[in-house]
Amino acid sequence: MEKFIGKPVSFDQIDVTDGFWKEKQELFYKVTIKSVYDRFEETGRFEALKFNWKEGMPNKPHIFWESDVTKWIEGAAYFLQKKRDPELETKVDELVERMVNTQDENGYLNAYFTVVEPDARFTRRTDHELYCAGHLVEGAIAYAKATGKTAMLQVAEKYIDLIDRVFRIDHSAKFDTPGHEEIELALMKLYDYTKEERYKLLAEYFINTRGTSNRDETYSFTDQEHMQSHLPVRKQFTAEGHSVRALYLYSGMADLALRNKEEELFQVCKELFSNIVNKRMYITGGIGSTHRGESFTFDYDLPEYTAYNETCASIALAMFCRRMWLIEPNGIYADCAEKALYNTVLSGVSLSGDSFFYENPLAVDPDRNIFNDSRPQGLKEHLPIMERVKVFDCSCCPPNLLRVVGSIADYMYSTAEDVIFAHCFMDAAGTVWLQDKAISLVQKTKYPYEGRIEITTQTDGTYTLALRIPAWAKKADITINGEEISAPVKDGYAYCKRSWKTGDKVSLNLEMEIKVLEANPKVVDLCGRAAVTRGPLVYCAESADNNYELRDARISRSGEYTTIQDSICKAEIPVITTSASVRDGFDQLYRDKSATRHTVPLKLIPYFARANRGKTELCTWFLLED
Amino acid sequence: MEKFIGKPVSFDQIDVTDGFWKEKQELFYKVTIKSVYDRFEETGRFEALKFNWKEGMPNKPHIFWESDVTKWIEGAAYFLQKKRDPELETKVDELVERMVNTQDENGYLNAYFTVVEPDARFTRRTDHELYCAGHLVEGAIAYAKATGKTAMLQVAEKYIDLIDRVFRIDHSAKFDTPGHEEIELALMKLYDYTKEERYKLLAEYFINTRGTSNRDETYSFTDQEHMQSHLPVRKQFTAEGHSVRALYLYSGMADLALRNKEEELFQVCKELFSNIVNKRMYITGGIGSTHRGESFTFDYDLPEYTAYNETCASIALAMFCRRMWLIEPNGIYADCAEKALYNTVLSGVSLSGDSFFYENPLAVDPDRNIFNDSRPQGLKEHLPIMERVKVFDCSCCPPNLLRVVGSIADYMYSTAEDVIFAHCFMDAAGTVWLQDKAISLVQKTKYPYEGRIEITTQTDGTYTLALRIPAWAKKADITINGEEISAPVKDGYAYCKRSWKTGDKVSLNLEMEIKVLEANPKVVDLCGRAAVTRGPLVYCAESADNNYELRDARISRSGEYTTIQDSICKAEIPVITTSASVRDGFDQLYRDKSATRHTVPLKLIPYFARANRGKTELCTWFLLED
Repeated sequence: MEKFIGKPVSFDQIDVTDGFWKEKQELFYKVTIKSVYDRFEETGRFEALKFNWKEGMPNKPHIFWESDVTKWIEGAAYFLQKKRDPELETKVDELVERMVNTQDENGYLNAYFTVVEPDARFTRRTDHELYCAGHLVEGAIAYAKATGKTAMLQVAEKYIDLIDRVFRIDHSAKFDTPGHEEIELALMKLYDYTKEERYKLLAEYFINTRGTSNRDETYSFTDQEHMQSHLPVRKQFTAEGHSVRALYLYSGMADLALRNKEEELFQVCKELFSNIVNKRMYITGGIGSTHRGESFTFDYDLPEYTAYNETCASIALAMFCRRMWLIEPNGIYADCAEKALYNTVLSGVSLSGDSFFYENPLAVDPDRNIFNDSRPQGLKEHLPIMERVKVFDCSCCPPNLLRVVGSIADYMYSTAEDVIFAHCFMDAAGTVWLQDKAISLVQKTKYPYEGRIEITTQTDGTYTLALRIPAWAKKADITINGEEISAPVKDGYAYCKRSWKTGDKVSLNLEMEIKVLEANPKVVDLCGRAAVTRGPLVYCAESADNNYELRDARISRSGEYTTIQDSICKAEIPVITTSASVRDGFDQLYRDKSATRHTVPLKLIPYFARANRGKTELCTWFLLED
Repeated sequence: MEKFIGKPVSFDQIDVTDGFWKEKQELFYKVTIKSVYDRFEETGRFEALKFNWKEGMPNKPHIFWESDVTKWIEGAAYFLQKKRDPELETKVDELVERMVNTQDENGYLNAYFTVVEPDARFTRRTDHELYCAGHLVEGAIAYAKATGKTAMLQVAEKYIDLIDRVFRIDHSAKFDTPGHEEIELALMKLYDYTKEERYKLLAEYFINTRGTSNRDETYSFTDQEHMQSHLPVRKQFTAEGHSVRALYLYSGMADLALRNKEEELFQVCKELFSNIVNKRMYITGGIGSTHRGESFTFDYDLPEYTAYNETCASIALAMFCRRMWLIEPNGIYADCAEKALYNTVLSGVSLSGDSFFYENPLAVDPDRNIFNDSRPQGLKEHLPIMERVKVFDCSCCPPNLLRVVGSIADYMYSTAEDVIFAHCFMDAAGTVWLQDKAISLVQKTKYPYEGRIEITTQTDGTYTLALRIPAWAKKADITINGEEISAPVKDGYAYCKRSWKTGDKVSLNLEMEIKVLEANPKVVDLCGRAAVTRGPLVYCAESADNNYELRDARISRSGEYTTIQDSICKAEIPVITTSASVRDGFDQLYRDKSATRHTVPLKLIPYFARANRGKTELCTWFLLED
């Protein structure tokens, strides 16, 4: 298969019809859109768009508040794309109206840099103006596509035109590339949507200038690294710095590599991807090991309690993967996207849909976290909070979740010439354009809880259906109309080529066994420990289900593991039961007697379902007996 | 045995003659005294005593620099006590002369609060003036005892008289009790030395006022806790806050309980002791789990990599223990003191005697620590340094080590009526005053490397020799003149009462086996892991000896452990060899195959000998096979 010929299939073309994601989308539609809106309203984020704030008033605008608003709009738009909703549109329209009213004549739009520090526009690299502009663009495109209303898009384009002039043409800003990336991928999206070459030019300018500009190099190496400008992008082979910024940049780089068919840039992206998944990623698809700069650290540094793993970082990782599979069909990207989406990303939102985590650690010790809470600022060590909250000061994750859940079907398919790739599985019906022909496909599945996926084509035609065989599946059978077939498998995809007739049914059966995984011995924090997974889901244990020292629970590869249906906060979720051995307690702190052990039942729940039942101990990596 | 009747036996009376501590003392005499002196000279600590500093000059005096100087004097004095040395005395005399010259007419003495902020004297609780005064007193007593020169003592007494007036009588300071304790125990020492009742009164005032003063309660609860004034001392049952401060306070409290025979205060001390050793102490006798406030955290919180374990804190813990065994003879105190001294305290100084650690973590991962070094201040997470340095900005530990090594024989004996308690074992000859009778005892031993201790009495008389049987000794035989005897053992001491004749030889044989210890399951960081000890020594492994992932090395209780003589940086030290199993490396980050293991030799060295061979991985707690 040639590289650089992949085409995305947008969620626009697909309706999620049932199952895991349908349930999530309904919850988000009913609860999350409104909940995030209300919190943003309360905290003054919407009011700020009116540019009425004056010194002494509450809710002083923040440099990145616009991005919260436009990401919420983008998320809402993805739901509107499926179902118009006048009430919701009115809310968006009001917000857009404020932007139209307050946008500077020259196109500039940012409340903070208008009402708080008007003289500081485009002077500080680290101040998120271009990041906000990027989200404005993404929100505007989404809303225009969903509703046909273009007011916001006009605002966005006008702003981008200013940015193009100031940065690419006149170099009249005080810096050359943004400290927080995002505009690069947004510009590529705008280029795709409008076909205006200059947007791609500007994206290219930002990507190619990064790490080469004298004006940007006023920071320390570490600070440059934090912003991925320590080196020209084509010399960056390890994932460094702020993890969200990094992955937004890499997404933009992959976009550019694809559009320009640039092998060098793609190879860099591949190195970065490989560095992440083979050395710097938690088993949950979480990235950014430390709260210090919300950043990557170094190879094999994956501490459990202090894992940062920002929800947005894993969203960005999935976005990067989706771009990579367009350039080169390889199951490693969808494996990674799936890991990130089903574990860290969904761990970022409660089962009730209205409260969130910014950070997703692998282990939580309530004693330790309470100690952290009680320390005064100066003595404070960072540990993640234990219970989800409805809004953060820096509340990027909630609207980002809204975006990703609303457009989740983006992760289902892509095409390349006469091949339809089926990447992530969900119960959904949609139309895939293969060159000029629309192919209707209906996918039925209880994924990620069950490994059977049925795809029925509703269109006659000769083409290849490339079904992803996840790396976790030890065995994968494919039948077409009930007959087992043997399709050639390459790089994680089974290529089923045939002349399809309407009603042909392909069944993919992935053996979804429970696995006990170990980490590389170089991960000092995980030596002697193992994690339990089933399909794409990582499982964990909470003290809410297991009343003993979870850190001391020793599991065995040879133990019996059973999947049973259970409910957690009314959600039907398969849990895993097994047994573990724990030491009997004793009084001394240290002793030389052999541990007396007793066997206890151990109940494991999917990691994404953690922290829905109050403060609790969390354990993902268990001592391994054998 | 009655309580409150113990009497200390000072190192004055005892000459360390051979073996472990003789070697240490010779090293300290040859290297450490001078090295610490030179570093203090270079950094302006001695110059500061001249009070010549002016704005713009280098080496601005620090609020606690006096304590560094007087602790160095105290340490030097302990060596002078054994052997006068004109050159060394000249150095001390010059320093004392500076103090005599610069002491305020009213008695005040602190460079910072004279040349930098003269108006701030006695206004800030947290600013260490009284802490410095305490160390001045201790240094002065030591130097007077060693040389008969009283100039420094006069300075100290004059300063204490001022403090007595300002704090106890006039209450004219802006606070009532010091933020950093130390003066309490120093005042008790001054009281013992001078028999002046008012010094005890002042100590009592500081101890009893702590936690009861409105004027001191201007801090947050956590800050009060940091300084042990969150509660009246008699209501403090858990060890909280800054660990050095805490243990200096507890030492003063024990001093007071003994002198006043106060049961309530003793019970508080005992609760605090118990809380420390049963819930908050590392296996190395290290205390203070976190760098945040250099403080205690909460029960069972004993992380390895970030363990703070300040050298001074373990010195203070040993000091507290020595006071406690005077009140109540119980081996738990000497067991603890010994653990602290042989492990954390000595880990604080290099085998070369000239470089030091402030912090003594249980595990070091060079990758992680290097990452820490490279972070800018704002993003910095605290991790201990990996290589010892010659002087710190806050350089309390080096002169504290000097004090403790110089006076180590303080830990050998105490008396109570007709009983001589032999607490810690070392090759030394000395005189113990039993009521009015001087008993000469010669102790020969290769402790802590061998478990045989021979004590020969050089004096006829009837008394009890109470030999400590350390808790780690599974078996302890006692012979007198070659004949095995069966002495009654109570609370860790074997009471050998007889009419002793000159030349009687008691042999105590402690079975010094290698032990594999586990920690309480409540210690989440140590679940599944074990440490190796032999006698009072904790052993550890370094990558300098073991070229594989130490964190992944799995040892077994049933493995073969052998003690062999070895040398580390020219020091003859018994090391332990055993074998461990480690996983073969693999490329993936996570995998579901069973680990392939291979057996490797594992060499363990005493914890105190760590970090003498460059940057290295350190591991103290190993995965336990069985």
